[in-house]
Amino acid sequence: MGLLENFKNPCEIKNFDLSKLCDLSQEVRKLIIDTTTKTGGHLASSLGAVDAIIAMLYCFDFTSDKVIFDVGHQAYAYKILTDRKNAFKSLRQENGISGFPLIFESQYDHFTSGHAGDAFAAALGYCYARDALSKDDFVITFTGDASFVNGESLEALLSTQKKPKNFLVILNDNQMSISPNTNAFSRFLCERQGDLSDKQTFLDKFGLNYVGILDGHDINALIDAFSAFKNNPVPTLIHIKTLKGKGYKAAESDSEYYHGVSKDLVTSENHFADSLSEILSNRIKNDNKCVCIVAGMAYGTGTESLQQKFPKNFIDVGISEDLAVTYASGLALGGLKPIVCIYSTFLQRAYDQIVTNVCMQKLPVTFLIDRAGCTGGDGLTHQGIFDTAYLSHVPNMTVLSPKNSAELEDMLDFAQRQSGPVAIRYPNGQIDNDLPVNKISTDNLWEVIKDGTGKCILAFGARALNESLLASKGTDAVVINARSLKPLDIKMLNRYFNRDIITVEDGIKNGGFGAMVMHYLNEAGYKNNLKIIAFEDKFIPHASVSKQLKDNKICSEYIKTLL
Amino acid sequence: MGLLENFKNPCEIKNFDLSKLCDLSQEVRKLIIDTTTKTGGHLASSLGAVDAIIAMLYCFDFTSDKVIFDVGHQAYAYKILTDRKNAFKSLRQENGISGFPLIFESQYDHFTSGHAGDAFAAALGYCYARDALSKDDFVITFTGDASFVNGESLEALLSTQKKPKNFLVILNDNQMSISPNTNAFSRFLCERQGDLSDKQTFLDKFGLNYVGILDGHDINALIDAFSAFKNNPVPTLIHIKTLKGKGYKAAESDSEYYHGVSKDLVTSENHFADSLSEILSNRIKNDNKCVCIVAGMAYGTGTESLQQKFPKNFIDVGISEDLAVTYASGLALGGLKPIVCIYSTFLQRAYDQIVTNVCMQKLPVTFLIDRAGCTGGDGLTHQGIFDTAYLSHVPNMTVLSPKNSAELEDMLDFAQRQSGPVAIRYPNGQIDNDLPVNKISTDNLWEVIKDGTGKCILAFGARALNESLLASKGTDAVVINARSLKPLDIKMLNRYFNRDIITVEDGIKNGGFGAMVMHYLNEAGYKNNLKIIAFEDKFIPHASVSKQLKDNKICSEYIKTLL
Repeated sequence: MGLLENFKNPCEIKNFDLSKLCDLSQEVRKLIIDTTTKTGGHLASSLGAVDAIIAMLYCFDFTSDKVIFDVGHQAYAYKILTDRKNAFKSLRQENGISGFPLIFESQYDHFTSGHAGDAFAAALGYCYARDALSKDDFVITFTGDASFVNGESLEALLSTQKKPKNFLVILNDNQMSISPNTNAFSRFLCERQGDLSDKQTFLDKFGLNYVGILDGHDINALIDAFSAFKNNPVPTLIHIKTLKGKGYKAAESDSEYYHGVSKDLVTSENHFADSLSEILSNRIKNDNKCVCIVAGMAYGTGTESLQQKFPKNFIDVGISEDLAVTYASGLALGGLKPIVCIYSTFLQRAYDQIVTNVCMQKLPVTFLIDRAGCTGGDGLTHQGIFDTAYLSHVPNMTVLSPKNSAELEDMLDFAQRQSGPVAIRYPNGQIDNDLPVNKISTDNLWEVIKDGTGKCILAFGARALNESLLASKGTDAVVINARSLKPLDIKMLNRYFNRDIITVEDGIKNGGFGAMVMHYLNEAGYKNNLKIIAFEDKFIPHASVSKQLKDNKICSEYIKTLL
Repeated sequence: MGLLENFKNPCEIKNFDLSKLCDLSQEVRKLIIDTTTKTGGHLASSLGAVDAIIAMLYCFDFTSDKVIFDVGHQAYAYKILTDRKNAFKSLRQENGISGFPLIFESQYDHFTSGHAGDAFAAALGYCYARDALSKDDFVITFTGDASFVNGESLEALLSTQKKPKNFLVILNDNQMSISPNTNAFSRFLCERQGDLSDKQTFLDKFGLNYVGILDGHDINALIDAFSAFKNNPVPTLIHIKTLKGKGYKAAESDSEYYHGVSKDLVTSENHFADSLSEILSNRIKNDNKCVCIVAGMAYGTGTESLQQKFPKNFIDVGISEDLAVTYASGLALGGLKPIVCIYSTFLQRAYDQIVTNVCMQKLPVTFLIDRAGCTGGDGLTHQGIFDTAYLSHVPNMTVLSPKNSAELEDMLDFAQRQSGPVAIRYPNGQIDNDLPVNKISTDNLWEVIKDGTGKCILAFGARALNESLLASKGTDAVVINARSLKPLDIKMLNRYFNRDIITVEDGIKNGGFGAMVMHYLNEAGYKNNLKIIAFEDKFIPHASVSKQLKDNKICSEYIKTLL
């Protein structure tokens, strides 16, 4: 660790002998591998970007220049080499550094990244402000080929011919992506055989000088290209080819090591996602009209095996959640039964399409919303705490949450028999309960798990239910699996109307499950006490899931004090 | 009206002599002009599309074939010539036909349109379903050049090279658009001078056969092109050039007629939008760091004069609301004070960007949200009833609504002094009140307009306030201009804590203003009666604004019964 050990400030890189930069790169890779083995994290993409980040730091000064990483999961080397070398061991840990760039974390982070497609648009804004204020710093976006073709990014690329000066787009083109990027525009931009004139002619029309294709691991070549851009800072796209997981082979001889890192996750078990493939396979075998749609996340959502097994019942539209949802509306209008599988936080991208194209037309589209509720180490941008709020106010929508994967399967069956849209949300991680399934139906929405003479706990979702059951042990409290947020189970609410009621959920408080219950109770003239336990009106920083829940009193310890 | 008078069924068009189709076109135009003079509506774009619609109806059978109009404001001729000739006089009226395609209105409407960019994606879904079910109908999208380049549409165009058979894209390229379309990709697609080979080569890569440029008013030429496509139904883009407002000159000699139609609006006065240009001009003169961003709607939002007067303080990104909001986040990070002017219903498109890029980074971006609340004749897709719900649950957001344009100006001044985001929402139409401005500040959020000893009415927004004041006349009720939804004025709530409280708003009930008040009151142990008046959990069909409000009891008559 010779070079990195004494490394303090990113401007030191400028004084490195070029020949030493490769050594630095090796050391940074080792630190990334060593750390993510323990913390989890986005290893492969971060390893691929190390050399380009070193070259950027050699050429630019990010105390004044700006770099915006698209998605931002590839920025570990940047964190290490700016001002978070020592803090890097705390990656994704409570009070440690975030897995994504975060403007509140460092002066070197210029944008809080996390969702695909924002970098280009934000960079254009930065450039406009810079020019208006007569500054002359450089603005750089660093974007992978998969998120470069997100609609918002395409709008930023294609809407105007007048691109600003001192603006550099680095298109990071991964050769070894686990899920091959099949996007046609991405292939057009990244095509390498034959002449490049089509692409250059095309990019000219959008005001970008094209430079490429460069080896994204040849630090000297990258420095030459960045230096050339600095000397002639016309708006430029530099196309680099990188190897995802570069330097990772060193770990292959150690299979345990390899395994731990390759999980790319903090938790080793993921109750709902792990069972989804089988659940969906059963569903498709039952009804060939079922079609699953994902937005570039087959692996994460647990649907990747379907692509092979049922190619006609599986569509991956790439990182384009809005496209996925509108596509699904077309499938439903055409007579199929679409199932949209998207993470809670990314489905935010398709809010309008859910409202206008699915719910307004009352189409039978099922949403399987993974990573709902807090998600642990992935940071501010990835917490799935808003879905209950952004879905429950939409007319015609049904919103459910299962207590375990067996109930998820039953709910999916129920959803597919409805004439309108149904959203089923569930968290990541381990869920310990093997409660039997009491089939859901319009006449049997909620179920009493534990009856009693005391206060009534309405738990929405598996985590809320488990915490509630734990809290209620040895008490006379009622615990209800209030698995349908919308519609509410009015019969059940009326049955316990004379009790004090506690609602528990792992979603945002304003506009969520408790709020829906409160609306009903208020209109019905309820005069007992209602306590709503949910995420308060704050963004959730990365920490363990249990810590995130406890910080918001969504935990058995707190619930117990109310009983 | 010879031809149209006896016209009953769209299949009759197939039996028309080709020479008669031009006469039919004239008659349809006359009906559109005569009707929209009385009802308001999207005249110019509908006139431009008449001939292409006639040619489509001549060639296709829309009892089985599908056509999806993007946005759908241009589809009047389609409505008239399918099954709504007689109903057309009821355009945009209560219980009359919608100004946009609506699947619940007719078997001929295949998609409920309204927001730009959906048609291509929905059509791909339709095609997938058709092929899965071994059908062979044609699927057509009819899209203007401005909405064709929306991000969702670009994703649908560019994400895959495998476009389905029997799929036709009609790109309706307006020459005479009032707001010239300056989008670079649109210009690339629509370029006509020189050879077309760049464009053809490019579209080839995305699996589309290019045909063009055709005169969109030459019905015979269009029929030839559509017939050629039917004979060889490879995925095809037919580029047609049309004249917006075609046939409109006939009305020019009658200036009153001309004026009435050119307003393109039902209401002749628009309190907030009409004053916006002056308010923003004052603001920019005061602070040159202010920059307004619109998404293709300078005219509608009342900001069009700024483009000329302050070109450096005005950005129109085209119909790309997500781009506009992320761009604004970059402007704010770069040190400017962006003001995003977007209609409530279209801002839904940028929900995730508001959450992740603006609120999470706590950036000083001001949102001026026009057409908030119900919007009258524009139909299901255009009612701005969700903004309170989709904004109020987002941490760091401030949500305000002014009682009149003078208060809007004061709020804007307040907003621009905040360190975080502020959304200011206001409705369209006439607002009759000239109440004086009581400057808003963090210590002076709400204002008592009428004090008393009776029930306490909390009114959020100008319409709610006016109805509340009317209702309270001659009663002992308190009426409060509760102009800040978030944060609530806690001091004021505590002052009237012992009263029965009525909240009034023109937004959706779940997750809106009343819900926020209820959360506070519940936690504070409120035991009196709270009544929330807001839009119920339904989409709002077109009707007059006053009817829409009355149907949901957001009216003085109902409020009075509670006092």
